[in-house]
Amino acid sequence: MIPRPAAVRVHDGVFTLDDATTLSAEPPLADVAGWLRGVLGPPTGYWLPPGPGNGSGEIALRVDPALAREGYLLDVEPTGVRVIGATPAGVFYGVQTLRQLLPPAVYRAAGTISPPWIIPAMTVADAPRFGWRGCMLDVARHFMPKADVLRFVDLLAMHKLNVLHLHLTDDQGWRLAVPRWPRLVEVGAWRRESMLGARRHATFDGRPHGGFYTREDIAEIVAYAADRYVTVVPEIDMPGHMRAAIAAYPELGNTSATLEVWTGWGISPHVLGVSDLALTFCRDVLDVVCELFPSEYVCIGGDECPPDEWLANAEAKARDAREGLAGPEELQPWFTRQIATHLVARGRRLVGWDEILTGGAPSGATVAAWRGRSATIAPARAGHDVVACPDSSVYLDHRQSTHPDEPVPVGNLLTLEDVYAFDPVPAELDDAEAARVIGVQANVWTEHMDSARVVDYMAFPRLCAVAELAWSGPGHDVGDFSGRLRVHKGRLRAYGVEYHRDSGPLPWQTRPDARGWPR
Amino acid sequence: MIPRPAAVRVHDGVFTLDDATTLSAEPPLADVAGWLRGVLGPPTGYWLPPGPGNGSGEIALRVDPALAREGYLLDVEPTGVRVIGATPAGVFYGVQTLRQLLPPAVYRAAGTISPPWIIPAMTVADAPRFGWRGCMLDVARHFMPKADVLRFVDLLAMHKLNVLHLHLTDDQGWRLAVPRWPRLVEVGAWRRESMLGARRHATFDGRPHGGFYTREDIAEIVAYAADRYVTVVPEIDMPGHMRAAIAAYPELGNTSATLEVWTGWGISPHVLGVSDLALTFCRDVLDVVCELFPSEYVCIGGDECPPDEWLANAEAKARDAREGLAGPEELQPWFTRQIATHLVARGRRLVGWDEILTGGAPSGATVAAWRGRSATIAPARAGHDVVACPDSSVYLDHRQSTHPDEPVPVGNLLTLEDVYAFDPVPAELDDAEAARVIGVQANVWTEHMDSARVVDYMAFPRLCAVAELAWSGPGHDVGDFSGRLRVHKGRLRAYGVEYHRDSGPLPWQTRPDARGWPR
Repeated sequence: MIPRPAAVRVHDGVFTLDDATTLSAEPPLADVAGWLRGVLGPPTGYWLPPGPGNGSGEIALRVDPALAREGYLLDVEPTGVRVIGATPAGVFYGVQTLRQLLPPAVYRAAGTISPPWIIPAMTVADAPRFGWRGCMLDVARHFMPKADVLRFVDLLAMHKLNVLHLHLTDDQGWRLAVPRWPRLVEVGAWRRESMLGARRHATFDGRPHGGFYTREDIAEIVAYAADRYVTVVPEIDMPGHMRAAIAAYPELGNTSATLEVWTGWGISPHVLGVSDLALTFCRDVLDVVCELFPSEYVCIGGDECPPDEWLANAEAKARDAREGLAGPEELQPWFTRQIATHLVARGRRLVGWDEILTGGAPSGATVAAWRGRSATIAPARAGHDVVACPDSSVYLDHRQSTHPDEPVPVGNLLTLEDVYAFDPVPAELDDAEAARVIGVQANVWTEHMDSARVVDYMAFPRLCAVAELAWSGPGHDVGDFSGRLRVHKGRLRAYGVEYHRDSGPLPWQTRPDARGWPR
Repeated sequence: MIPRPAAVRVHDGVFTLDDATTLSAEPPLADVAGWLRGVLGPPTGYWLPPGPGNGSGEIALRVDPALAREGYLLDVEPTGVRVIGATPAGVFYGVQTLRQLLPPAVYRAAGTISPPWIIPAMTVADAPRFGWRGCMLDVARHFMPKADVLRFVDLLAMHKLNVLHLHLTDDQGWRLAVPRWPRLVEVGAWRRESMLGARRHATFDGRPHGGFYTREDIAEIVAYAADRYVTVVPEIDMPGHMRAAIAAYPELGNTSATLEVWTGWGISPHVLGVSDLALTFCRDVLDVVCELFPSEYVCIGGDECPPDEWLANAEAKARDAREGLAGPEELQPWFTRQIATHLVARGRRLVGWDEILTGGAPSGATVAAWRGRSATIAPARAGHDVVACPDSSVYLDHRQSTHPDEPVPVGNLLTLEDVYAFDPVPAELDDAEAARVIGVQANVWTEHMDSARVVDYMAFPRLCAVAELAWSGPGHDVGDFSGRLRVHKGRLRAYGVEYHRDSGPLPWQTRPDARGWPR
């Protein structure tokens, strides 16, 4: 099973799931029961409606608030199966574990196998280590069609991950329709062409790329994810990584340059100006975000905006003086405070990349710590909640083997074993500080992933290791994990995940046309 | 509604579908009822289990063999809804019509809207004109991942189409795992790079492309389609369009050349040799096909294999003499007869492109008539069943407007109106001959469609017109169709279909990097 449950005890005997097995669920679990019927069964088949067991045993879902939050107890006995959770989410995770006890073909969309299925009698008790078990998906660098996003949500749910951090905007594309600012998608949602491979090679593909989500698409993604106990945390990256918006509305920028949506990768010198208009714009966009995303957390990015870039802007200098700031290095903290105030007034909590710490992050801000493993330490010590997502351990765009044909190798080598060895809580932290590490998150930056197929290849199986980090405590046995992963890959194949194989890329997973620049 | 039902009569009053609406279904309709619950409902919600109506009316599904095969009667009254079909397929189509009476958001994967929903009281009576209502999808030129194929099946079902003709092999790729011939996928399932745009420009992308379906993938696709009353008709194209197989097994070819899987488009001079080995190979592959695909019809291609290509092969000449054939032009009919005998012995019916008529097609063969509208006439007169799929009317790879930015314009202009104006039954046929036109099929050749997004753009909305051709009789009013299509596009948007807009391609749907060659 992946992630590995905290405790598994196998008993004598087996439960036989057959055509006469019934499913009963307490009312708050109607959704989980429906989901179970939909996933496991042929359209109707053997999953009979809720009711007392009348044939070959019953699967019963119920809530018991005495269990740990998000935890579950799965009890398989010869006479029946019980899945008990403190919350419906807990029951959902118990059901996911039950699913892993069935043949891998239950991960297919249509019945290629039929019951009866034999499940050994056992007791599984489990609860997650972290409340934030996430994956960031960058749909800005490459747009991912809605159907593929929903499929990715399924993959998260299958691995008991519960946060999809959606990176919706960047220099290379703006993916969210915002009514008062229509040019964001008319202009900002596409670029003329894309860079092929690493920046230094300066090669381009000549092919336009684009796409965006309507408000209805977002509502659907959010509802679909919620049905699977996944929260979609939206990110609008500001004040840097804003070039797509500035291409749409040049007056938002820090210079008077007329720009196109960026076709290259990297850090653009073109960032938001520090104007009243830019602040109004950010607040407008965040209002739409708050309306569409029920998530308590809203990410405002905040990464990679060097203070000097703002110096080019006359308005910024005036702002320095007007707000009594000591210099440009105080501008971003000032900006972040304005935004935090706006979000807090709407009942939301601000999340930012660890750059927001520079000059002091607003109190109550949650930090996504990405610049190395040590980036988690400072915010935890400064009293901020932290989500550990260091580039050195969970950046899934980095190459995953030394195979010479790994596609577009960038960044450091990051093997499955490297990911698995990562402890999100640095040993330097004391208990109170450690408690501020609320989670772990993999980041899937998609400069070099232009389809769901490539995302599959880069994300799996490393995301399986991240899921296990998020659920289990430290001190893992990688040999044990490898054995379970071998079985788990059968589930991934059944679902249709084109994961990275131990032997390296398949011929069609290579990218001789897009050279990388490995560190 | 699209396709337009044969008869719609609106009555006084409305039916209110709300949380208390129940669903009852006769036992053979359990699958349809399950499907309806899954598509329309939040995971459980208001779609209560089968049982007598107890609240705000009932939706009842039942079978009445007195109705036309695949036909249905949908009766919406203030007190309840009845969907009656001669077969479960008929009921399924009635349910699809019912779905079109609800808000477009029911086509989304998760609930963004909630009942109550109001449906005007009405009676709809409908039956399809043709039994074969198909779409050919070429997964050889560009592989389509399983998830996208399943999504395409959903789109066919939504339009009451019932045949997915899967073009599994071609010069540019072999997509089906065949145990006794493992190099078919090891070597044949990928190519080094792909041609960009039309042949005459001779530009290539430098990027490998590939993928294939395992036996389990095929079983899943077939089962998923069957759940939606779609039959998957497999095609193994022979003896031409075989270069991927010949790259894997050079001894199968008509020359001693060592080939790679073709990176270009067009008609390759490299075809199967007329050897015993080649025949053994074809029979082996078709045995696997018969095992995986329950379809009565199996397509063996047969197109674009000029007889002279076989002259280069010494074995072919010997075969000529041994079989007493008059010359190379008799070789392909002889080959097709061998294959037909093999398929008929396995209880299957051979389908071939209209080239199989040259020199006489085996009796009982069904002809897919593609070379112009008149191609349907000869086979119908020669006593063959015919599926009309002329390039001049239903080749969805041809450009759909005169907009200068249409991506990779090839072939003739084929507008939505052109498709809609097509009558699959040529006026030249008498009644007995016309009865041999068993269906109509759109063909989606994917040389220039490298993702599901591009297939969406090329297939829709023209496939909506094909669906209406397949269901309704001739004499359509295009203005009426356009009005209904305007509403229907809301459903396509909800499902996430990136269809062609009347105004032409969106910026990111253009292909300045891949020049076409329009006729």
